[in-house]
Amino acid sequence: MAVLVLGGSGFIGSYVVDALREEGHEVTVLGRRPEPFRHPQAGVKYITGEFSNKNAILEALKDTTAVVHLISSTIPSTSNIDPVLDINENLISTVNLLQLMRDCNVNKLIFLSSGGTIYGVPEKLPVVESHKLKPICSYGIVKAAIEHYIEMEHFLHGLNYVILRVSNPYGPRQARVGVQGLINTLLWNTVRCQSTKIWGDGNSSRDYVYVEDVAQACVSALASSHCGTYNVGSGKGQTVNEIIEVVGEITKKKPSIERLPARGFDVPRIVLDCTAAARILKWQAATSITAGIHETWEWMKDREEK
Amino acid sequence: MAVLVLGGSGFIGSYVVDALREEGHEVTVLGRRPEPFRHPQAGVKYITGEFSNKNAILEALKDTTAVVHLISSTIPSTSNIDPVLDINENLISTVNLLQLMRDCNVNKLIFLSSGGTIYGVPEKLPVVESHKLKPICSYGIVKAAIEHYIEMEHFLHGLNYVILRVSNPYGPRQARVGVQGLINTLLWNTVRCQSTKIWGDGNSSRDYVYVEDVAQACVSALASSHCGTYNVGSGKGQTVNEIIEVVGEITKKKPSIERLPARGFDVPRIVLDCTAAARILKWQAATSITAGIHETWEWMKDREEK
Repeated sequence: MAVLVLGGSGFIGSYVVDALREEGHEVTVLGRRPEPFRHPQAGVKYITGEFSNKNAILEALKDTTAVVHLISSTIPSTSNIDPVLDINENLISTVNLLQLMRDCNVNKLIFLSSGGTIYGVPEKLPVVESHKLKPICSYGIVKAAIEHYIEMEHFLHGLNYVILRVSNPYGPRQARVGVQGLINTLLWNTVRCQSTKIWGDGNSSRDYVYVEDVAQACVSALASSHCGTYNVGSGKGQTVNEIIEVVGEITKKKPSIERLPARGFDVPRIVLDCTAAARILKWQAATSITAGIHETWEWMKDREEK
Repeated sequence: MAVLVLGGSGFIGSYVVDALREEGHEVTVLGRRPEPFRHPQAGVKYITGEFSNKNAILEALKDTTAVVHLISSTIPSTSNIDPVLDINENLISTVNLLQLMRDCNVNKLIFLSSGGTIYGVPEKLPVVESHKLKPICSYGIVKAAIEHYIEMEHFLHGLNYVILRVSNPYGPRQARVGVQGLINTLLWNTVRCQSTKIWGDGNSSRDYVYVEDVAQACVSALASSHCGTYNVGSGKGQTVNEIIEVVGEITKKKPSIERLPARGFDVPRIVLDCTAAARILKWQAATSITAGIHETWEWMKDREEK
């Protein structure tokens, strides 16, 4: 297949590109900037452009058979500072993408949604896909609205789609932007002998999923003939304090922690039920938290931060 | 209370204004234009302004204790023509409203959502509020996203809110704009001896609710100390063909019908379960379909269309 990866130079995107290439797909990447940690990959076509630029998208859709959409210009923890920006850059650009895909007869879309924020504070764990959507940050609200537009496009115009609600991804090649990703932030700070801010008592838990596993979920979704929405996580929950302990063991350095009061928009506990993805997409997370953190540390420990 | 009614010059808004005045509330109206069928009401303050104009909203919020938000610049049947406009004019303006209300310490909001479109094609009838949201038109998707932002504002900042998911409102004072509202469209066309376009075989059914009943639901919501989301409908379903028959009986004229193929974004059958509103808000629809159509016809039959 000729696959356009929107956001293919980003953290998850770079692994999706690798996984697609391994499967023999032709890959075009559209993104704002080159990969921060690698040179352009041989055989991959790169287009530098804004997601909001319809002409750039139209150009990129030429000769494309499927789109993997990984772009988000916001992150959960800061999306509430400017929800209008979030709507403008992510929701409206995706609505335009759907229209352009229809115009160009590109009929397959994989979209990375957010299993970590779309359910809000879960009523029951692990969370299944049919759980009510009650996001408590703009990031999650915008993801939910995008999901609705994609489902409408499927219902009215026959778009083939898979929505992957990814939990908390981590792994090598994640630049330290703000405060996204506990594991990567902890590891980067440990490299630099700096302390890490932790909001709350450290007992909140998350479902951490290794980036290569997420990339494999995209490949599985692309190969699947099913349309639907699937949780993509490890299916296991780890508390902040447990992660701090594992990071300490693997790095052999005790992480320095600055404890701050809990934040209102942080979900206390979340673990995704990923049995639907296993059953329908034949995908499940393969990397243990220890192995994943080890890989990340090995990549990061002698590296200059970006 | 000092109540700001956004869209108070519109069809539903004019009845909300009347009902609030009867309860002794002070009323300010913000809208694009004056009421089409009545002179300005004595004792009501009118502000002419766009919903997207933050300064106008800020001015209107002065000395306000509660907001009833009825504005929508789009209608279900045409919202898919330009979803970006729908997002810009309705979603973004409402997100800005929430921020301005917080800045001005206005802590109570009644929002009119859409019981007719937000559930999409219902899996089970009558539809309860916990039914999955699967809108198949942009109008419904934007309403869902607005609901999420309101719920987030409640969760993070303590906004008191009631969301009313109104089914298909009808009644006097509805201008004939495009093709919204089967009953009003049928009646206007009967006045003018023109034919009415019907999409599909006429067996699709809707939950029609009389406009004065909707206004009473707003008054009940304003008086309630509960925060939540409630269906507002008659709780009964009427098919298109049944409505055509009732209109024929009441007007004593046989409606002329032009039958067209069904449209993809029309939901085949919907009836709302309104027991939660009865239990919590102490509200239920009081007007029968025959009485409501009769009232509408009496108002309309000698009137010039606007």
